[in-house]
Amino acid sequence: MRIYYSEAHRAHFPQGELHGGELVTPFERPSRIEYILARLRARGMDDLHDPGEVDLAPIRALCDAGYLQFLETAWAEWTAEGFAGEIIAASFPARRMQSARPPRNIDGKVGYYALASETAITAGTWQAACASAACAQGATAHVIAGARCAFALCRPPGHHATADMYGGYCFLNNAALSAEAMRAGGAARVAVLDIDFHHGNGTQDIFYDREDVFFASLHGAPEDAFPYYLGYADETGTGAGVGATANFPMPPGTDYPEWSLALDDALARIRGFGADGLVVSLGVDAYKEDPISFFKLDSPDFFDAGRRIGAFGLPTVFCMEGGYSIENVGINTVNVLEGFLAGCAD
Amino acid sequence: MRIYYSEAHRAHFPQGELHGGELVTPFERPSRIEYILARLRARGMDDLHDPGEVDLAPIRALCDAGYLQFLETAWAEWTAEGFAGEIIAASFPARRMQSARPPRNIDGKVGYYALASETAITAGTWQAACASAACAQGATAHVIAGARCAFALCRPPGHHATADMYGGYCFLNNAALSAEAMRAGGAARVAVLDIDFHHGNGTQDIFYDREDVFFASLHGAPEDAFPYYLGYADETGTGAGVGATANFPMPPGTDYPEWSLALDDALARIRGFGADGLVVSLGVDAYKEDPISFFKLDSPDFFDAGRRIGAFGLPTVFCMEGGYSIENVGINTVNVLEGFLAGCAD
Ligand SMILES: [Zn+2]
Ligand SMILES: [Zn+2]
Repeated sequence: MRIYYSEAHRAHFPQGELHGGELVTPFERPSRIEYILARLRARGMDDLHDPGEVDLAPIRALCDAGYLQFLETAWAEWTAEGFAGEIIAASFPARRMQSARPPRNIDGKVGYYALASETAITAGTWQAACASAACAQGATAHVIAGARCAFALCRPPGHHATADMYGGYCFLNNAALSAEAMRAGGAARVAVLDIDFHHGNGTQDIFYDREDVFFASLHGAPEDAFPYYLGYADETGTGAGVGATANFPMPPGTDYPEWSLALDDALARIRGFGADGLVVSLGVDAYKEDPISFFKLDSPDFFDAGRRIGAFGLPTVFCMEGGYSIENVGINTVNVLEGFLAGCAD
Repeated sequence: MRIYYSEAHRAHFPQGELHGGELVTPFERPSRIEYILARLRARGMDDLHDPGEVDLAPIRALCDAGYLQFLETAWAEWTAEGFAGEIIAASFPARRMQSARPPRNIDGKVGYYALASETAITAGTWQAACASAACAQGATAHVIAGARCAFALCRPPGHHATADMYGGYCFLNNAALSAEAMRAGGAARVAVLDIDFHHGNGTQDIFYDREDVFFASLHGAPEDAFPYYLGYADETGTGAGVGATANFPMPPGTDYPEWSLALDDALARIRGFGADGLVVSLGVDAYKEDPISFFKLDSPDFFDAGRRIGAFGLPTVFCMEGGYSIENVGINTVNVLEGFLAGCAD
């Protein structure tokens, strides 16, 4: 399995994350990738490819122009304003406020384009987000060219990012870019399967009115888990997209027997949709020891989940999302990939 | 002039405010009140009254029940969750997310009921917010009983708070409570004049569809100033309230000649509305040295502004709002009040 990876992810390394009323070391940190790379190498999965330069055209096609401009220039504007810290949203267009008029002031702009305040933007964030998207682009191109699968070792992750908002550690929606590239590459119908612990609100938002891209997400129930305000079971799409969104919110303590039933349901829905290409938002924070999640999956469960996805039979791009039990991120991620390969051979 | 004041404001004293990506000592701090009290005493304005117990009934009539429940129990829920810091919103219902379903999780609830992340909730916040509202209630009752004016020395301030959201250092909207009490006390039409540097988004939101309460605000243009996403000149009310909201956004560097023209415009609009009672949201952060604002009013200008409001002739309740040039908050606030008294005598 080809792995697309860029060292440029290191350019994004905030020192602080707003958590529990304090600025703590971010859960989403560069060392996550070290553990994944180490485990990949330990398992002989060393077909690493640098994706090269990002192709901005599909990103501009997917995202709001003002948002991209903001991501590119925010750090310069913020430091020019004299702020001493990293960029963290302090204001935001709350209920019944204007959400169609981006302010001129950088502090106001930050809140306008943010969907949460835990995620800091730093000097290298735009560069790293582009490199992460490039990994998704490289992996997808490889699958379009005929490969059975590829792994985009994306960092920062992407599934919380909408076309016009960042947050939840995400800036550009890699999975959505991959799905769009698959469509452009000839797949008539594409599905995104999001197995990260958190709801893929960004991906859902991007494809909510689309009939050609199915979105299925297994996640902690929004009443109890970030991003809190999206991911209910009754969110099923809008307009032409009605029926092409499927959410499987699950309560604290959910274990693999329960979770895998939802996985099978999601795959059955994708089968019914008739997808001919699959993008997996691969987060491993459903792991029992994840510090910010509440499912109870164990490491062998990730292998089994991968196996079911492999047996499903579609050309598949994996985009790395979350997973914050740092020492276990490698084994759990690679378990999904090895399970997938086993499933392909079944 | 009677002054309603409660020592209980001290119960609200967060240690941190999210500002420029850092947790800094809050600009809105108890010592602001010390300076106002000292200046009041120095000027012989020492008719201080403790408001006694808050009357929760009008607060329950004005505010969302879930919001009040949240304010009252947030600290207990937050500490029970094991969070080490003060309560600061890290997530929020951003664009196209659910805004009608409060989460069960306390971190999610915080973001649901917040309109900004700079404002922390601590152990004593609810108690202080109630005492602040009690000051507004006491001052308003005094005016309803026939007094020409009264000063509610409120802290925390109120004008950013909506019926269901806190932020901008505000939790309960004291000015709105005062206006409602005036209405209930016999005034057919009431006006709220907000001269705080920041737009009174909460007050506007509460009365936006009301024909019996006029809202006028002089403030830093939303493109450039908090709360950023409300306060444009084209926001003029909705439904029965069309025409009963008047915003006067002004650019950085605005000085008193320009500002006082807007004040005269606002008073003329209130005259045209036919108000028979006035609530003044009295912030003094339009001061030239305010650390988080950008107008250029000098201390004597506040006296002149007060004089114009006094000459206006309506029964008037002043509710203290912002002002963060700590050493000058006292003189500027009292200048408004003394100007008002001079204006009454004109
Ligand atoms: Zn996640
Ligand atoms: Zn203010």
